[in-house]
This record gives sequence, structure tokens and C-alpha cells, in this order.
Amino acid sequence: MLRQGQAAALSAPCIPQLRLHRCVCPKYRATRSLVSCATSVAAAAAEASVAPPAVAHRVLLAPKDARFNEDCTVFIEEFRIRGNEAGPDQRANIITIANLLQEVGGNHGVAMWGRANSGFAAMPGMDHLIFVATRMQIRMEAYPKWGDLVRLETYFAEDGRLTTRRDWRISNADTGEYLGAATSTWVTINAESRRLAKIPEAVKQRFLQLAPSPPRCAIPTSDTRRKLPEFVWPPQLTAPSQLGRRSDMDPNGHINNVAYLAWAMEVIPDHVYQQYQLSEVEMDFKAECTAGDQIECFGMPLTDCASSNGSTQQFLHLLRKGGSNTEVWRARTTWKPQKVAQQAAGAAHVETSSAAPAAAAAAAAVPAAVPAVPAAVLNGSSSVPANGAAVNGKKSAAAAAAAVCVGPSLQKSNGASTASCSKTDCEHTSCSNNHAAESTTTSSR
Amino acid sequence: MLRQGQAAALSAPCIPQLRLHRCVCPKYRATRSLVSCATSVAAAAAEASVAPPAVAHRVLLAPKDARFNEDCTVFIEEFRIRGNEAGPDQRANIITIANLLQEVGGNHGVAMWGRANSGFAAMPGMDHLIFVATRMQIRMEAYPKWGDLVRLETYFAEDGRLTTRRDWRISNADTGEYLGAATSTWVTINAESRRLAKIPEAVKQRFLQLAPSPPRCAIPTSDTRRKLPEFVWPPQLTAPSQLGRRSDMDPNGHINNVAYLAWAMEVIPDHVYQQYQLSEVEMDFKAECTAGDQIECFGMPLTDCASSNGSTQQFLHLLRKGGSNTEVWRARTTWKPQKVAQQAAGAAHVETSSAAPAAAAAAAAVPAAVPAVPAAVLNGSSSVPANGAAVNGKKSAAAAAAAVCVGPSLQKSNGASTASCSKTDCEHTSCSNNHAAESTTTSSR
Repeated sequence: MLRQGQAAALSAPCIPQLRLHRCVCPKYRATRSLVSCATSVAAAAAEASVAPPAVAHRVLLAPKDARFNEDCTVFIEEFRIRGNEAGPDQRANIITIANLLQEVGGNHGVAMWGRANSGFAAMPGMDHLIFVATRMQIRMEAYPKWGDLVRLETYFAEDGRLTTRRDWRISNADTGEYLGAATSTWVTINAESRRLAKIPEAVKQRFLQLAPSPPRCAIPTSDTRRKLPEFVWPPQLTAPSQLGRRSDMDPNGHINNVAYLAWAMEVIPDHVYQQYQLSEVEMDFKAECTAGDQIECFGMPLTDCASSNGSTQQFLHLLRKGGSNTEVWRARTTWKPQKVAQQAAGAAHVETSSAAPAAAAAAAAVPAAVPAVPAAVLNGSSSVPANGAAVNGKKSAAAAAAAVCVGPSLQKSNGASTASCSKTDCEHTSCSNNHAAESTTTSSR
Repeated sequence: MLRQGQAAALSAPCIPQLRLHRCVCPKYRATRSLVSCATSVAAAAAEASVAPPAVAHRVLLAPKDARFNEDCTVFIEEFRIRGNEAGPDQRANIITIANLLQEVGGNHGVAMWGRANSGFAAMPGMDHLIFVATRMQIRMEAYPKWGDLVRLETYFAEDGRLTTRRDWRISNADTGEYLGAATSTWVTINAESRRLAKIPEAVKQRFLQLAPSPPRCAIPTSDTRRKLPEFVWPPQLTAPSQLGRRSDMDPNGHINNVAYLAWAMEVIPDHVYQQYQLSEVEMDFKAECTAGDQIECFGMPLTDCASSNGSTQQFLHLLRKGGSNTEVWRARTTWKPQKVAQQAAGAAHVETSSAAPAAAAAAAAVPAAVPAVPAAVLNGSSSVPANGAAVNGKKSAAAAAAAVCVGPSLQKSNGASTASCSKTDCEHTSCSNNHAAESTTTSSR
């Protein structure tokens, strides 16, 4: 339904330009496309010295068709950021990004195998074996604005004896600007025994024919698979518990785990949430949830978040089901001061400061405005029991699988990003090599 | 991020068809588009007597560009239903539909005026006046499936001395099947005084030049603007209170009111939510919410919802801010038994029964499955105070405006739909006239 404050945009009952357009354009009734309509409107507006809607001919063009790259090892899809996917700063947030990663990953499967009646990709040959995500890491340099067209590229790779990997690269489809990247780790389990299972060798060999060679990774391997620290009880940060909504349920019959990110955001102190930009999230999936579950949201600062010295902030997050010790999700989030984050993202995206006042004005114009309420409370002491051992003592099959697969040799310390780079393991933008040229080419629309 | 149970679809590591494809297709390395890739895969699969991915060449084509109809009075946009927009039945729910209505309404404004830096449509000439939605009604005959391409058409109209109206028609873009319709009522208020304001006559005249003539309406006028009954306290249905999430905040700086629908769903008894299909929702917007608000969710059956006699069920919903008497939203929902709803929607969409087992199997295959918990409790008695008078005694500017605009002459009794139809006021599918032919034409892609 419609947002009250957005009404001006939605009803659009003031049309001086199109009135002129009706008068001056003999082809008025034959304009069939948005492009021709908008062009005529712009021409009419120019006659009347009214600023023409210069972007109207562009912003509503549909994305290009989803497609593979030339050797079918990379799947590419574009998405226009919708109004309901943008927040008060007019930009997509991490929830939107996570949803798009999920979508393009699923569509990659559908593009190869078609869609079954169930809605999933109709992939043959993996009887009794299913893949389970155990870890995901998203690193964002900038977030796209409402109306921006984003381009997601995804590909997969073998990643150890029992794990596979899916990576993503995110960019602005119109400007080519690099926005971020993500990587995820998957294990295979037997659907009946729920035990770890190895992918049959024949299947793996076929699989590798559609994987980039040499393997690509969207985030430098030196920055991935860093072990998350233990959560120290009692928690320093808590937020009101969250109810798993029926509308959060997904085609798998459980809560879409993007909701975990939404819940976790509630524990971030207000000054950090308002003045910092989430630049990275590293997530370990432990268990699933369903509608009706009450989820307790805890946080633990890994930096001195009380000070506002403009340095990077980090938090450890833990979600667990209310009334039990079942840990659902653990994650580390990294936040950069907005000014620093915007400078890093380049001039093309340093627009928040100009957009924000307009947003604030729009919000202020809405009747019955309510002051924002801080969603998180920084607790000096907490009534939450110090049962960390119990929380970590119960692991799901997925968590157990992760424990097997993420061995000590792959665990990195929580240090600063070293961003070491070689042709075979990195395609982040700070790399001086040119092997990511295909990815950074600006779309010609 | 990725759903654990959806992993098979996302990683897609089994590629016998593409292996064949590599062997038999000399143009393998030159296949650039999804269409050619999928076609080759299908051909290779046919050689191996494997069911080809017949839909792969189609389901990932991008929607057509957003566009106007010939006389620029109707704006048309298409959307592919994403995985995160589908529920356990593999279909979009009312939340998805409401988000798409919002999106196409906003884009209609952007298509006419371009997009301002704020993200909103850059509409000139309405200084100090803003539009506020007071009412919305969505009527669905069928819900699109995950992967379906839906087509939304929208247009506006004058609707009384102080109100305007925006309507929508929703159909399957590939098959032309009618899915549903919606209508909304808007008032104009002065942004400074917050009082009702009349649209200047000159603006209105320009506005009407882009409105269909004679006026169109997507839902028969005999079925719209039916007054919602008073809520009787104490409530018979309650659900756990909902926390306004930061991720629910929208570009207006308040909670996207689509979240109201998500909250309201929690109060529906489990057997109705599982066995019935939401066929209509009529909403009165009373106040806005912001992140951190605790929202109390109440319900009142308008039919004998305890019996399972297969008849239509209705509920009255009321949302209010916890700890206050501020009524946020009141709505009536109408639910039809799923079998009846599917029959009404036609054979093309009677696929739930075949899709559901696959979905259930996928869900069952996920580790650590948790039994569903009923989200609503049918209270014989309730501890909620009987303060209905107080709840209704405090009205926002929007609510006051609605009270002015929805006069007795327009209020209909809560009877069965009479579906009276004439060329000027109706374009629902049961109409035997042919004036909606443009709308029901199947897209040729």
C-alpha cells in the first residue's frame, strides 16, 4: 500500500508539463512507450522553461535480461532498487542486499535447470543430498540509492574436501561503480541421515566445468573465514525480543534468514546506527526459526563504541530462541563513520548529505509524526543469565558441519584487512591487476 | 543471504545437461545470452532423454520496460515475483502485493516528473500541499507464484470534493490471467497547518487531463468504501505485540505501512491462515509508527471462524501503539476456503496442490526443523482493558480527514458483493462488457 508521506509522488496530480505536451505534440495519442512519452514531455517542458524530467526516460527502463558471461561460468542479473527497499536515507540497506544475493543465487540455478513446480531450480542428479549454508560474509563499500540499477554477478567454486563456495560481486549497472561483494560457504548433507556427505566425484567434475577456472573469489581469501569470538555473558547490549512473523516465512517453510539480519540491527546503539555505515557482516548460521518464535537479540561491542572518535566500530551479535538455549545465528558487524565510508566509495555516491534533508522534510510533512525511539539499550548490567556455555553447547547439524569444515588452518585472526591480492584469489576493486575488467565494465544501455 | 533449504537450487553443482551441452554444441563458448544457453541446454538434454528445462529460456527474461498506455492515462509496469516474496505455498502473499502496488504508484509519478535527489517524484506546482492516504482496499482472486511475471496497471481520478483516488489492476503478464485489483483514497492537507486543503482548481484541471475519461475504477464502486464496524472490547483475538524494526523504516522516515498488514496477519487463527486464502483487505490508516514502537495486535471475528464449514470468514483488525490508546490502523480481512478461491481463479492457477508437496518435502529436508507455532490465540477472556472509547477518541489528522471524506452517502453495508457493472465504473473480470480488453490482452514476449 502507499506511504502517507510519499503521497505527493504517488498521486502526482499536478501536470503542467503534460498539459503543454498535449497542446504542442501532434503525435500525443501515438506515444506508446515511456521513453517517447518522457522525451515529448521533456521537449514540451523545455519550451515552457520548466526543468525537464531528465531521468524519466532512463530510470524506469527494465533491467537487462539475466544472462551468463561468455563461458557460462558467471551468472549476471540486474535489479532496480524499489521504494520499499530503501530506508530513511533513501538507500538500500543490508537487508535489501541480502535479499538480492539470495535472489540471484537462486536464479542462477533456475537459469541452468529451469524452475520446478515447487519454485526451486529443477536440478537433477543430487538425490538425497542437499546443500546447507553455514557461513556468509557481505562487504559493502557503498549502498545503492532508491531507483538505482544494481548489477549482481555470481559464481561458485570447489572449496575444500566437503565444502563449496558461492561468491557475488555487486556494482551499479549504469555507472559501473563497485558497491560490494559477498561470499558464502556450503556443505552437503544426506537428507535422510542429516550427516555430512561428500559430493559424488562425477557430480563434482561436472560442477567444476561451470565454475570459473582458475577459481575466482569476490573477497580476498585473507579476509574470509575469520573465526567469530565467543560471546561473553551477560550481554552488554540487548534489544526487545523479536517475533518471527508469518510474513517472514519463505518457500522452505521456515523464516527467511535475511530476517536474522533485520533482528540483529536492533541491538546496535542508536548513535552508531545513525552515524555509521555497515561495511561488513560475517555470519554463522546455527539453526532455523519459524513463525511464532520469540527471538532474543544480544550484542557485544568489540570496540569502544561509546566514544565517538570516528574510528571503525565492531559488534558481535547473537540470536537465540526465547526460553531455550538454542543459538540461531552469530555474526560480527563492522561499521565505518558515514563520511569515511562515503569518501571511500567515491564521489559518485557522496549524495547522502544532499538527499537526507529532503527525506527529513518529507518525513516532517507527515501528520502525527512520532519521535524516533532508540531501539537498543546499552546495559551496564543485565538480567540475562550468564549461560553462554549452554548456548554454545547445543549445535544444529549445520553448525556441526561448519565446525568440521572451518578448520584451524583457515581461521584468520580478527585483524585489519590485509587485502593481499593475486589473479587467482581476488577481484576486489583496490586490486591493481586488470583481471576484473569484465566485471567493472560500464553497461551500455 | 541464502536459505539453507534452498541450497540445492542456489549452488546447482550438478550439471549433466551442460556436460552434454559442452560435448555436442560447437558454439558453446559463443553462447552469450541466457536464451541461447538455455536453448542449447534443452537440445542437449533432449538427446539424453532428460526432461529439458523448458522454462529456463523464459522465466529469467527481464520484465518489459515500464510504460504508459496510448493516451498516457494508464501506467503499466511488470515485476517478477522473487523468492523472498513467496511464502511456504510458493506464492506471493498480500505483503508482496501491497509492496508492488506502492512501487508502481511511486514509479507512475517518477515516469511523469523524473526522480528528485530525495528519491521521490519531482512533482512541481503543489507547494505546501501533500497527499495523505486514508483508505486502501485490495481484492485478490489469485496470488502469483514464485517466478511469475505480474503486470500492474494504475491510474487516478477525481473522487469527490476533497479526495482523489488511485486504482490498480493486477494480472499475470504472461497468461493475461486476472489476479486482483485495488483502490485507494487520498486527501490533500496543508503541510504547515495540517488541515484539509482543496486542490487548486487549475491544478485539478491539469491533473484530470491525465486521468482516464470516463473515470475507471478497478473495483466496482458498490463494493468500495464500506464502513468498518466499531471494534468491540475486550478483543477476542490477540497476538504477541510486534516491534517496529529499523529495517521496516522507509524513505519517509517512518514504518512502511505495508508492515501493518504483516502485523495484522499474526492475529488470524492458525486453521484459517493455513486453509483459507486472503481474498480482500479494507484498510483505514489512522496514524504512523516508527522504529522501536511496540504494536499491539487485536482481532475480532465477524463470522463464526471456529467452525470449519467452508464458508467465507471475516475479521476486524485493530493495531495500536503499546502503552497508549493511539489506534494506528483498522482493517477488515475476508478469507475464502483455498479450494473455492482456486476454482474461482481458474484452472491456470490451480497448482497449489501439486506444488505444496514439493514445498513440504523441501522444508522437511532442512536440518533442525521446528514445528510451527500458532501465532494467534483465540481468547475466551482477555486481560486487555475495555478501552475502546479511548482508542477511538484520539484521531490523527489523516483519520479526521477520512471521517470528513467518507460520508454516509458513500458508506455501504457489509453485504455480499453485488458486482454491479457499467462501462464507467467497473473493469473487474466478471463484467461481460469488453471495455477492459486492453487490460486483459496477453503479452507477447
